[in-house]
Amino acid sequence: MINPPFTFKIEARQDRARAGKFYTPHGVLNTPVFAPVGTQASVKSLTPDQLTNINTSLVLANTYHLHLHPGDELIKELGGLHRFMYWSGPILTDSGGFQVFSLAKNRHIDNDGVTFRSHIDGSTQRLDPEKSISIQENLGADIIMAFDECSDPYDKEYVREAMVRTHAWAERCLQVKTRSDQALFGIVQGGIFEDFRQESAEHIADLEFPGNAIGGLSVGETKSEMHTILELVDRVLPENKPRYLMGVGTPEDLVNGISRGVDIFDCVLPTRLARHNTAMTRYGQRLNVVNAQYTRDAQPLDQQCDCYTCQNFSRAYIRHLIISKEMLAATLLSIHNLHTLINLAHDIRLSILAGNFDDFANRFFQIRSELELDQGGN
Amino acid sequence: MINPPFTFKIEARQDRARAGKFYTPHGVLNTPVFAPVGTQASVKSLTPDQLTNINTSLVLANTYHLHLHPGDELIKELGGLHRFMYWSGPILTDSGGFQVFSLAKNRHIDNDGVTFRSHIDGSTQRLDPEKSISIQENLGADIIMAFDECSDPYDKEYVREAMVRTHAWAERCLQVKTRSDQALFGIVQGGIFEDFRQESAEHIADLEFPGNAIGGLSVGETKSEMHTILELVDRVLPENKPRYLMGVGTPEDLVNGISRGVDIFDCVLPTRLARHNTAMTRYGQRLNVVNAQYTRDAQPLDQQCDCYTCQNFSRAYIRHLIISKEMLAATLLSIHNLHTLINLAHDIRLSILAGNFDDFANRFFQIRSELELDQGGN
Repeated sequence: MINPPFTFKIEARQDRARAGKFYTPHGVLNTPVFAPVGTQASVKSLTPDQLTNINTSLVLANTYHLHLHPGDELIKELGGLHRFMYWSGPILTDSGGFQVFSLAKNRHIDNDGVTFRSHIDGSTQRLDPEKSISIQENLGADIIMAFDECSDPYDKEYVREAMVRTHAWAERCLQVKTRSDQALFGIVQGGIFEDFRQESAEHIADLEFPGNAIGGLSVGETKSEMHTILELVDRVLPENKPRYLMGVGTPEDLVNGISRGVDIFDCVLPTRLARHNTAMTRYGQRLNVVNAQYTRDAQPLDQQCDCYTCQNFSRAYIRHLIISKEMLAATLLSIHNLHTLINLAHDIRLSILAGNFDDFANRFFQIRSELELDQGGN
Repeated sequence: MINPPFTFKIEARQDRARAGKFYTPHGVLNTPVFAPVGTQASVKSLTPDQLTNINTSLVLANTYHLHLHPGDELIKELGGLHRFMYWSGPILTDSGGFQVFSLAKNRHIDNDGVTFRSHIDGSTQRLDPEKSISIQENLGADIIMAFDECSDPYDKEYVREAMVRTHAWAERCLQVKTRSDQALFGIVQGGIFEDFRQESAEHIADLEFPGNAIGGLSVGETKSEMHTILELVDRVLPENKPRYLMGVGTPEDLVNGISRGVDIFDCVLPTRLARHNTAMTRYGQRLNVVNAQYTRDAQPLDQQCDCYTCQNFSRAYIRHLIISKEMLAATLLSIHNLHTLINLAHDIRLSILAGNFDDFANRFFQIRSELELDQGGN
């Protein structure tokens, strides 16, 4: 690799949107990019080969889950997460913060960290910035995340407290980090409050992480509020570092996020919908494939899709698999849903490089409006 | 294809073992061959691409299940089973007989056919030779099976009755069959009784099917009884037609069956064991991968295996997937287990072609005995 790790080169811009290359020890991320989530070191129902076939470049894994099982020390002993899950491309691990706040029981937060009970066996656990970094260093992902606190976005007093702790924890993460082959990203918090988001983005920007994330979005706020915050944060975060919008999203979120300066996305939605028998289309439609209307439907899930599933299997076959409780249904739907988002991000990248992202986005929202998908907020 | 469909060419023999080619409208079966079972038009947890990668040539599907759901007429309407499940190689469908006798409720048998209740919705269903052939013609497999009755192998009176019906039904199947692009195989029954098996093999041989199956084995009898019956039937069935041993087996069953003249095998065991967290090895060992001893085990499931799973994943990772209830565990174990049997059949074929199957079989049983696998019958 000619470029040192964690260099971010912007190849083209259009308004706020950017196409870039982020260099990691396990390969180059061509941005904008959508990353599948492999919570427990497995993108549910798919092999690494199947992920490669749908042009996956970055895979996420969850610190909270892997710390609880099988344990980060075991993964380190077995050669690290890349070797363990057989993913030779870039990996990103989250900090565990979000899961502590969404999954764990009997949570007690203090300024030093969080004590909680495991959602698996009820055992008492402790996570703090130092522990989160230590776990993430054992796992060995290319991109690791600062330990943060994600609050109810509307509870102003709590949002402020969580933001202040997030800032202090970000500094402690920077201090204890030891590995030079991992990029630590900071996380902006601040709920839906513009003054907090401004303050948080400035604080995180000042810490000069090699990349920055926007947390605490897609957790209950409106799309309009999310867009306002993205526009605000986009003006504050350094242009020459990648921006990662955590836990987002849908096809329309990708177009909206990229047009507001976002480079990296991840979300469990495509694989979760797949396990709930639902196909996503490029323009954001959702097909519940179990519906009786698909019983004799010889069409693919999405006529315009060139994924393995759509090239070879009918809606009728996938519906049959679902009703027959065949695992292959989740696999075929996951391939299609992930391909839809990965391919959309890639096509947007090409449109930015070609200088016609405006047209791309206009056409995207035009088709959505013809499909009546933008009524009522989706 | 130069050879007309359903020609069977024997390329080499060694004692009773044969290596051959069976020509079907969807490609050549190189025998001996092991066929994965796709009960509901899906080999559980695997895509057709994954089946191709482990050198699958023949896939089984079940008439009983597909008739109940999604219905053979729907599959016909959608272009037949090959198109429906996207398997472009040869397919074999069973007659539905075995499932009627093992799965269905409130079964009533008369000389004309069987009335039963669906195990899915309790609806009253009827199968007879004519209906079974009609369903199998709608499905459109390359090899279809005569409708037979599989009895308790030790109940002499019932075995005789079932055999007599099986013979009458075989003739009716031949009479109503219309498609020339499907090979109808007859089935020898007769339980563990040598006189019945002799009579049944002679009767079925006289009907001049393009291939013959041995049914009613691996249903509770001892290995030694199975071997005696195979040797007897082998002497009666025509040499120039393929022989299919239904619902068998294990690695040792393959070696034992091939040395007694069998060409085609199928069994749900590899995929069923996979869903029960168990890996099969080439010599018949079974690893329950969830066992604590594999927690930190960096070895592949089987050191000598070159399948995708064994080339890339550790026992520790697969154990973690099982405990985390990740679907990928069943996929990786199914790939390995099926590859083990398909590859074993293929290696036996090569040894017959090379004239050293004797050595191959001796070495196989020598290693099993060193592994102490032949104590107590397995």
